[in-house]
Amino acid sequence: MSVTFAQLRDAGGPEGATFSDGCPTRVVLDHVTSKWGVLVLMTLSDGTLRWGELRRAIGGISEKMLASTLRTLEADGIVHRDAHPTIPPRVDYSLTDLGVGLAQRLLPLVEWIAEHAEAIVARPPR
Amino acid sequence: MSVTFAQLRDAGGPEGATFSDGCPTRVVLDHVTSKWGVLVLMTLSDGTLRWGELRRAIGGISEKMLASTLRTLEADGIVHRDAHPTIPPRVDYSLTDLGVGLAQRLLPLVEWIAEHAEAIVARPPR
Repeated sequence: MSVTFAQLRDAGGPEGATFSDGCPTRVVLDHVTSKWGVLVLMTLSDGTLRWGELRRAIGGISEKMLASTLRTLEADGIVHRDAHPTIPPRVDYSLTDLGVGLAQRLLPLVEWIAEHAEAIVARPPR
Repeated sequence: MSVTFAQLRDAGGPEGATFSDGCPTRVVLDHVTSKWGVLVLMTLSDGTLRWGELRRAIGGISEKMLASTLRTLEADGIVHRDAHPTIPPRVDYSLTDLGVGLAQRLLPLVEWIAEHAEAIVARPPR
C-alpha cells in the first residue's frame, strides 16, 4: 500500500481530519458504498442501460430503491440520466467520467468479494 | 481494468450468476460495504485497537452500531477479537489476514472518496 488510512485522515488540514464525523467524505462514503449503490455502479460499468434493463440486470432491487439510488448517484454527478423525448419515453442511464473512475476503484473490491464470499458465508457460527 | 463486472458475474457457473439475488456475494457485499464496516476496517488497517480507542478513532458511531459491526466482521473472519483475562478485562481488535487483504482493496476506494467528496457535496441541487 502506498498510502495508509492514517495519512488520508491527517490530510484533512485545519478544518478537521478527513473521514471524521461531519466530513463530506462520510456523506459520499454512504452514497457509494451501499449494497445497491455498488451494484448499480458495477452494472453500469459494462455499458448504458435503460431503467428496466438495469432493474433486471441487478435483480432483487425494488423500484423504489432503484429510483432512490439512481437519484442520489445522479445528484452526485456519478450517473448520467438521458431522457429521450420519444413516444413512449425512453430513459438511458450511464456512468459519467467521475463514475467511471469510481467504478475502477470498486472493481478490485468486488473481485475480492466474488473470490471470498462462499468461504465467508460457509463459516460455522461461533 | 483487467476484468469487467460482466465477466465476474458470468463466472458464477451453473448455480447462477455471481452477484445475482441470493448469491453469497450479496451477503458479504452488505457486510463489508456499509459505511461503518468500511470505517472500522480502515481504522483497524492502521493497527490493533481496544474497543474505546476504536470508537474514538471512528467518531460518531454509537456503541450499539460498533458492537454489531464488529460482531458481523468477526463472524466473517475479517476481524480478530482478542480478550485478555486481566482485571479490568481488556479486548483488542485487529484485522485477520483475510481482513488485511480486504483493507488493501478498500484503500483505493477510500482514497478516491477523500479526493472527490468535497466537490460532490458542493454540487448544486438539480
